[in-house]
Amino acid sequence: MIIIGEKINSTLKAVRPAIEAGDAAFVQELARKQYEAGAAYIDLNAGMFIDSEPEKLEWLVKTVQEVVDAPLSIDSPDPAAISRALKSVKSDKPIINSITDEKERFNAILPLVLEYNTAIVALCMDDTGMPETVEDRVVIADRLIGNLTAKGVKVSDIYIDPMVRPIGTGSHYGTVALDTIRKVRAEFPEVHITCGLSNISFGIPARKVMNQAFLIAAMTAGMDSAILDPLDKKLMTFVYTTEALLGCDEFCMNYLMKFREGLLEL
Amino acid sequence: MIIIGEKINSTLKAVRPAIEAGDAAFVQELARKQYEAGAAYIDLNAGMFIDSEPEKLEWLVKTVQEVVDAPLSIDSPDPAAISRALKSVKSDKPIINSITDEKERFNAILPLVLEYNTAIVALCMDDTGMPETVEDRVVIADRLIGNLTAKGVKVSDIYIDPMVRPIGTGSHYGTVALDTIRKVRAEFPEVHITCGLSNISFGIPARKVMNQAFLIAAMTAGMDSAILDPLDKKLMTFVYTTEALLGCDEFCMNYLMKFREGLLEL
Repeated sequence: MIIIGEKINSTLKAVRPAIEAGDAAFVQELARKQYEAGAAYIDLNAGMFIDSEPEKLEWLVKTVQEVVDAPLSIDSPDPAAISRALKSVKSDKPIINSITDEKERFNAILPLVLEYNTAIVALCMDDTGMPETVEDRVVIADRLIGNLTAKGVKVSDIYIDPMVRPIGTGSHYGTVALDTIRKVRAEFPEVHITCGLSNISFGIPARKVMNQAFLIAAMTAGMDSAILDPLDKKLMTFVYTTEALLGCDEFCMNYLMKFREGLLEL
Repeated sequence: MIIIGEKINSTLKAVRPAIEAGDAAFVQELARKQYEAGAAYIDLNAGMFIDSEPEKLEWLVKTVQEVVDAPLSIDSPDPAAISRALKSVKSDKPIINSITDEKERFNAILPLVLEYNTAIVALCMDDTGMPETVEDRVVIADRLIGNLTAKGVKVSDIYIDPMVRPIGTGSHYGTVALDTIRKVRAEFPEVHITCGLSNISFGIPARKVMNQAFLIAAMTAGMDSAILDPLDKKLMTFVYTTEALLGCDEFCMNYLMKFREGLLEL
């Protein structure tokens, strides 16, 4: 599993003031802890600062890469903010989070993917709005993959996000997400599939267990990445456990090692 | 999910002496607690009593049905023990656990299924031994379903068990089980699919998290029943959570009710 660590996000109550105040130590600690906990990418989001997102995002990039080598996930819909952030990125291939199949957004963000040779999270969404069905999502995924690869982006640099909607707003949204994952995986064995895991549980109680169940179900369906909190020990326990269950961990070596290190939470 | 409560089993250290001593109160308490925790069937196993299995199984039937109305699962490979137990069963359609595609066992147990109009757990196993691949298992499942229905057993009374083997003895056994479930489910939408859940984790540490992950993955693949410990609150939490996730719980009503009743363990 390719974990995109979600903690450095201006929408989080504990984090926003730290970014606002330029509290480098706080942000660096969050980055380091996520990296040590297994995050492959550190997501950086300054979207709550409407008037100063580009500067804030650039500051996050500079601040975080002082302490971790992990590639960064530049989390913004704004080409100007992404561009400014990417100029400062020194680490290995970063990822842009995200592009969609909305014409304007696609055309504005694609050049940045190419110029900086980034990976890209591609949301199943287009100018007709949020897709409703599995078929709508798969059509958009097909188009995104087709249009990105036609411009030279490698399939293995694309992270399709099925746009998970909360099951509290529709009992069918769990199977919609899982069936989309299954179909995209069957059609494109080499594409990555990711999602904002906790979207599934928005608005219902006991969110953690729903997120855990969805993680395991989505991995079983073919998801190989997730945007989540790597400091959530129980969630990471299920990452390792499900990797072993799905045969991605020969002789359960990593599972056994995590157990010995006390990293499996019972 | 159709839960078959596994606790009244003579292979369990805490239970064997109670059966041996004829401790009715102990056995009845286990039955009542499993029933209240959501078991649809109460499994009864006296297999450790080699010389007296039929009497002991009959005693379990009589003892348990004094206190619960749940249908019973008669857990034995021995036709004589099953037959004696079934004679005493008063509850609704019991289930025999289990038949296989081994000729002798099939021919000895089928008449009991028909005579007592029971449901039947059908293990994917035949005279060539334990199947190795998904294909071997699906061939046996096909043959079992074909031969049982040809004799008048309803598809919806058959519980196919894919014969889960421990991932500690082969990293691929998780996907073997899940792919078997997927294929049997695709071919027979009306058949039930069950398994002894904890077999997956035999011999590895932190068994509980592996059982939880396997439960969720197997439900996602199409399993609609499991032989498990309904007194394990965390495991049952994931039963309710995964039912909601998979759209089997309209408006998440049952999930929300279980939350309010304090039955979701975080």
